[in-house]
Amino acid sequence: MSSLHAVIMAGGSGTRFWPASRATRPKQFLPLARGKVLIQATIDRLAGLCDEGHVWIVTNSAQARSLRKLLPDFPRDRIVVEPEARDTAPCVALATATIAKLDPNATMVVLPADHVIEPIPAFHRMLKRAAKIAADDETLVTFGVKPTHPATGYGYIECGPRRDGDEPRAFAAKRFREKPDLATATQFVANGGFLWNSGIFVWTVPAIRRAMSRGSEALGAACDRLVEAIAAGKRTQVKRIFEQAPKTSVDYAVMEKADKVAVVEAVVNWDDVGSFPAIESVGTGDDENNFALLSGGAAKIALQSRGNVVYAEGKRTVALFGVEDLVVVAVGDAVLVCPKARAGELKTLVEHVRAAGRTDLL
Amino acid sequence: MSSLHAVIMAGGSGTRFWPASRATRPKQFLPLARGKVLIQATIDRLAGLCDEGHVWIVTNSAQARSLRKLLPDFPRDRIVVEPEARDTAPCVALATATIAKLDPNATMVVLPADHVIEPIPAFHRMLKRAAKIAADDETLVTFGVKPTHPATGYGYIECGPRRDGDEPRAFAAKRFREKPDLATATQFVANGGFLWNSGIFVWTVPAIRRAMSRGSEALGAACDRLVEAIAAGKRTQVKRIFEQAPKTSVDYAVMEKADKVAVVEAVVNWDDVGSFPAIESVGTGDDENNFALLSGGAAKIALQSRGNVVYAEGKRTVALFGVEDLVVVAVGDAVLVCPKARAGELKTLVEHVRAAGRTDLL
Repeated sequence: MSSLHAVIMAGGSGTRFWPASRATRPKQFLPLARGKVLIQATIDRLAGLCDEGHVWIVTNSAQARSLRKLLPDFPRDRIVVEPEARDTAPCVALATATIAKLDPNATMVVLPADHVIEPIPAFHRMLKRAAKIAADDETLVTFGVKPTHPATGYGYIECGPRRDGDEPRAFAAKRFREKPDLATATQFVANGGFLWNSGIFVWTVPAIRRAMSRGSEALGAACDRLVEAIAAGKRTQVKRIFEQAPKTSVDYAVMEKADKVAVVEAVVNWDDVGSFPAIESVGTGDDENNFALLSGGAAKIALQSRGNVVYAEGKRTVALFGVEDLVVVAVGDAVLVCPKARAGELKTLVEHVRAAGRTDLL
Repeated sequence: MSSLHAVIMAGGSGTRFWPASRATRPKQFLPLARGKVLIQATIDRLAGLCDEGHVWIVTNSAQARSLRKLLPDFPRDRIVVEPEARDTAPCVALATATIAKLDPNATMVVLPADHVIEPIPAFHRMLKRAAKIAADDETLVTFGVKPTHPATGYGYIECGPRRDGDEPRAFAAKRFREKPDLATATQFVANGGFLWNSGIFVWTVPAIRRAMSRGSEALGAACDRLVEAIAAGKRTQVKRIFEQAPKTSVDYAVMEKADKVAVVEAVVNWDDVGSFPAIESVGTGDDENNFALLSGGAAKIALQSRGNVVYAEGKRTVALFGVEDLVVVAVGDAVLVCPKARAGELKTLVEHVRAAGRTDLL
């Protein structure tokens, strides 16, 4: 049987956790996994699933330095640095070529660095199920999360017929649907045959190479040339090939055009920790529905306050008195207060901070 | 003419500025005077009015150390430490006896450490007017602030006939009225003949000694004995006399029972900086009526936010996004968020903090 490798995609930035997240300290660096840094929790979650030496991180050069500092024990040669940001397809090609050098038939798990997934045994169970499907017949496997509400922030996967009687349940993936509007999302949820796209994939090296070629000739060719260049240890060539690869996403260029795609139903608690109110799922609550995610000695005191979300780092106490449904963030050099209902719009505030010339806070 | 001395009463503690104020750092230590520490602003406000060597601070032992640290250039022998907290009457007696040693006929200005009063020339003008009245005929002089609304948090002074045609206007003080209920306060304001008691006094040493004896035989005797003990340099005696003096307020034991009291109308902007919303008067506002008092490199960013009050110290930025009418406080180890309308109830929160065992924050 082929070896199992895991590729953690750690290139994301984003502004939804400002001022906790910054350009050099994106969301995956935040202790949002019940006090543990997300990427560390992602690494830890893989322990026992694949060999320690088979865990890779793909990131950009801006974050690589912080990453090495954050994870001093993680081997540097397994941190793959993208020459530039070119969306997820070239990133996956680079990871595929890197792993192909060690095992051209390897099975790969590709997963975001910044999700919270629990419990670990169920996570392993669903990945093993996917690895088996992927190894059997060169199928690309995704994971679908049963929708709890008509979310418009996720892509959806339309399920086809169930593959077999095994658990967790797996289906042929009939169609990928981009983030829908509310009416469409409501239809999807009512229909019942749709799952949220979790952004986690499992496939073999041959399968993803074939699917890249099928989806985009240029992408497939780039991947083939990356395999050769990496096998030959030609770094400058790798850089040039990468920079000329099509700038596109793996969802669009590969998954939506693939012929054999399966979706395994996620039997885990999955949270993509999209914005501060996610702390209601990944934080600690009190009797008045105030939720907090505290690290580094931080504390929360709430009196006559309900439904608030607190994120704090370091030796500081956040005291709430008579307030409701707010997000309160306190980190070293910044404090944020905004209504919970507007936490998804933080980008607007970050743009305002930039316009105000306070790039030191970004 | 007798010399003019100023006595700054710096014994107050209180919880209305928590978490900025703490047990060892009461309100008068906060930079609430447009970024300047209140007691420093009070000292500076006296420059040019009386000799530098004639400014005194009376405080308690708990605050004396912090005070010496905060004001390294202020001579230690002019910081008078109360042996224990016994309300304002023994405190005034101690200050009177201390000054009497230098000039038994001195004129004294007694004023709180933690008010904001502007502009300084007008302040000097009203004090000089009071000093003249006080020196002329042993009258105790207070200052009354024209009410802008029926405040229930201040005492009121009922004005009698106007003394003379001089400016600022001075009246015989007919009666002192404790903090009234709203109906009474509304009557006072409608009547027009009432002024807020500013807590600032001017009198001569002989006048206040006579008034103490008249108001309370025990208090007058204590003051006489303090004068003797201090003149003789007998420290332990001073302590014993002080500790046996009646524990009462100068308003109740002296002012309300005095025969000759005048009130000078305050021709200044006076703010007792009673709680965080006072920052609307003593801080800096923006176009959306957000007011801030920032020190030590702190900054405020407000977007789509109105009517908030921000207090921040140190190199931290407070960002408000989509919030209204909140108080947001950010200091080294604590952040507070509460509605502006409830800022006067902070005592409740502080009691909760104490009950939660977080005495480190008090």
